[in-house]
Amino acid sequence: MDREMQDLQSRLEDAFAAASAIYQKRGFQRRIGFGRKPALVIVDMANAWTRPGYPFTCEKIEEQLIPAHLKLLEACREHNFPVVFTTTCFQVVDPDNPNTDMGLWHKKIPIEVADYSNEDIWAIDSRIAPIKGEQIMIKKRASAFHGTYLAGYLRAIGVDTILVTGVTASACVRATITDGIADGFRTIAVREAIGDRIPGAVEWNLFDIDAKFGDVESVDSCLAYLNTVNFRND
Amino acid sequence: MDREMQDLQSRLEDAFAAASAIYQKRGFQRRIGFGRKPALVIVDMANAWTRPGYPFTCEKIEEQLIPAHLKLLEACREHNFPVVFTTTCFQVVDPDNPNTDMGLWHKKIPIEVADYSNEDIWAIDSRIAPIKGEQIMIKKRASAFHGTYLAGYLRAIGVDTILVTGVTASACVRATITDGIADGFRTIAVREAIGDRIPGAVEWNLFDIDAKFGDVESVDSCLAYLNTVNFRND
Amino acid sequence: MDREMQDLQSRLEDAFAAASAIYQKRGFQRRIGFGRKPALVIVDMANAWTRPGYPFTCEKIEEQLIPAHLKLLEACREHNFPVVFTTTCFQVVDPDNPNTDMGLWHKKIPIEVADYSNEDIWAIDSRIAPIKGEQIMIKKRASAFHGTYLAGYLRAIGVDTILVTGVTASACVRATITDGIADGFRTIAVREAIGDRIPGAVEWNLFDIDAKFGDVESVDSCLAYLNTVNFRND
Amino acid sequence: MDREMQDLQSRLEDAFAAASAIYQKRGFQRRIGFGRKPALVIVDMANAWTRPGYPFTCEKIEEQLIPAHLKLLEACREHNFPVVFTTTCFQVVDPDNPNTDMGLWHKKIPIEVADYSNEDIWAIDSRIAPIKGEQIMIKKRASAFHGTYLAGYLRAIGVDTILVTGVTASACVRATITDGIADGFRTIAVREAIGDRIPGAVEWNLFDIDAKFGDVESVDSCLAYLNTVNFRND
Repeated sequence: MDREMQDLQSRLEDAFAAASAIYQKRGFQRRIGFGRKPALVIVDMANAWTRPGYPFTCEKIEEQLIPAHLKLLEACREHNFPVVFTTTCFQVVDPDNPNTDMGLWHKKIPIEVADYSNEDIWAIDSRIAPIKGEQIMIKKRASAFHGTYLAGYLRAIGVDTILVTGVTASACVRATITDGIADGFRTIAVREAIGDRIPGAVEWNLFDIDAKFGDVESVDSCLAYLNTVNFRND
Repeated sequence: MDREMQDLQSRLEDAFAAASAIYQKRGFQRRIGFGRKPALVIVDMANAWTRPGYPFTCEKIEEQLIPAHLKLLEACREHNFPVVFTTTCFQVVDPDNPNTDMGLWHKKIPIEVADYSNEDIWAIDSRIAPIKGEQIMIKKRASAFHGTYLAGYLRAIGVDTILVTGVTASACVRATITDGIADGFRTIAVREAIGDRIPGAVEWNLFDIDAKFGDVESVDSCLAYLNTVNFRND
Repeated sequence: MDREMQDLQSRLEDAFAAASAIYQKRGFQRRIGFGRKPALVIVDMANAWTRPGYPFTCEKIEEQLIPAHLKLLEACREHNFPVVFTTTCFQVVDPDNPNTDMGLWHKKIPIEVADYSNEDIWAIDSRIAPIKGEQIMIKKRASAFHGTYLAGYLRAIGVDTILVTGVTASACVRATITDGIADGFRTIAVREAIGDRIPGAVEWNLFDIDAKFGDVESVDSCLAYLNTVNFRND
Repeated sequence: MDREMQDLQSRLEDAFAAASAIYQKRGFQRRIGFGRKPALVIVDMANAWTRPGYPFTCEKIEEQLIPAHLKLLEACREHNFPVVFTTTCFQVVDPDNPNTDMGLWHKKIPIEVADYSNEDIWAIDSRIAPIKGEQIMIKKRASAFHGTYLAGYLRAIGVDTILVTGVTASACVRATITDGIADGFRTIAVREAIGDRIPGAVEWNLFDIDAKFGDVESVDSCLAYLNTVNFRND
């Protein structure tokens, strides 16, 4: 498996290099850059995604994503930048109920486990627990913007840049970044703070994102930005 | 006051008659009609709006709106039509916090009272309490559609008609109806189930709505529809 | 008619005074204020609404709304503030075609006249013609925000304040203002630059707007702001 | 290059097989299925994407995508199912103009070529030209739903299923499908009618889509559905 994973990584890197040659020649893969007032948007770092034993459980949570989030949270809290946590759950998780708020998504993925009445499942992981003043947003679909007040909230408080983290690269994180730039925000994907559950998915999704929808930046690069951007609320 | 109110009503009725003459000649005030699968959308019938003593407290709750809602709820529950309750509250109600989810609305109205941490304030009025399977939707703005999953939810479950009730006529109810038809739903404003807190506001808002955005229908007319529409989920 | 109109105005002013007493005591009718970077959003000042002979034709266009718009446009253009013109039209105006983009709106109002193939009907009034660099946005519903790129456009270019004008007070202007504050913009309704086609509609809609959704300000007040706000694009 | 492409394909197929094993065990990759009333949503099959010589030019247009579209169009037109064509262009394509409707997207990709004043660039490819009654929708962002009237249009006309085609798999097609299911539509990605411009992008994006957001189906399977679904407009 490790060997196969290495082969895949190596082959994907070859493909990305070939694709980058095309993109660079044609004017893709530009830099959007950091802006004046950032917010941290943490996607679905809730127990069903971060703890073992669920259909949604992801890889590299303990050793990589949690530490990356702790660093980002510390910097945002020190400078009073807004933090938004999203999670996903549903009030009607019976797939046979014709009036379920799962919409049609349970016809593709096992979201019936995300039961609102069982808060343990969808609560934000206690290792990165929200503090007073940080938004906890329940969403029903992949994007943190779709069917939520995120865009209006960020605009009203003057945010122009979002650092997006969490899981998964191939669904909720990517959808959030695609919507983020569409809604007029500078979108930054924080590389080590983004995960998934299948081999390759982080790589090919970050590649597509960096080419077209947001800058993929390291945690260190984001920390340097958070610690130096000099925003004064008007 | 009663005399003044009667004078205003009478003068408004004259104005509406004159306006209706113009509208009728020009092709406004058409009927949108009831559709195949209705949902009941109950706007902000929560304590801060329905109980005495709040800035948001409305008129005619006990004697008119609650009984109207009970009749509509009974019919919807009997036939298993979806019911959505909205309420409005905020995670950060300090107007000086630059990151508040009140957005800019507290700069117009006293929404800082709608504190998420005090559930009594924003809970749905217990006289019309939701039952299992009915959606309770927290919204941040006037419209039940804006920044919520309402449109996607209704579309996914095949609803084509919304009966809109609650408070206030001049804000959340009207905004919900305006968005409802824009999002492709047949919108019905249920006359006796809609309230407000200032004289005239119900009248002029229902007049505008009926002219352009939805049919204003009586509770009886809606009950007759709910009891006869023969929807089968596919 | 003039006498009747005066009576209505007088009666409405009495009602507004009584309502304002309630609102003031309860903390409504606050000021949202002008912000750092304004845009002018001109709603449906297109021929079908501004020229004689259409079902949509409004009052006071020539003597009041056009001059008010010319002053606002001059100030915005001098200072390079963005200007957005909206208009409304449809690609399929046959009400019997089950696939029309009129949605359900033709079931309430005569929008079948707004035929995309007849540009004269929906073109912006030539007396206030757009110039190069100003957005012309075709919308399908009442609000300039609903189903358009307006929110994302404004956010991306750093606008935090919208001056809203045009027609009608009771439909597209009001819906635009309701959505504007919901999307996080400071909303200003420019009093003399807003019109309608029936008696009283401007008055009661501006009253509701000023109480809850945006500040109603005079043209002069807006001009003073436009000529002094000192925005530098970052 | 061909050899490298074969190696990549082979390696990706291995990765997809490994991922599918995980997904299947956990309840992903379910079937959403075809519904009652379909629409065909054709994404960005406009000259800048389908003709040689542009930064956006895609692969396999002539030999694969055009024939696939012609078959789908024929079936939809025969049965009077709605067809929507999207394209992308901008009224202000000067990247230095602070008020451009390109938003922030020109900071990632070369959309400054999509100039509204040069219709040749953004017109729908004449080989699959729209006919009267079919919607042509100008969008500003990746998703056909974002900042457009698509969701409201489809909902109003009773569509419950969208067949999505066009370019590119890694941007506008994927974003459209992600939004489509979120908005409550059964989403079908038509495999041979979807393209891109870099090696591997069609494969990894269709894989992610099929796992989580929509069913990837062949043209033949879609034709069989279009020719047998027995929708009667109510």
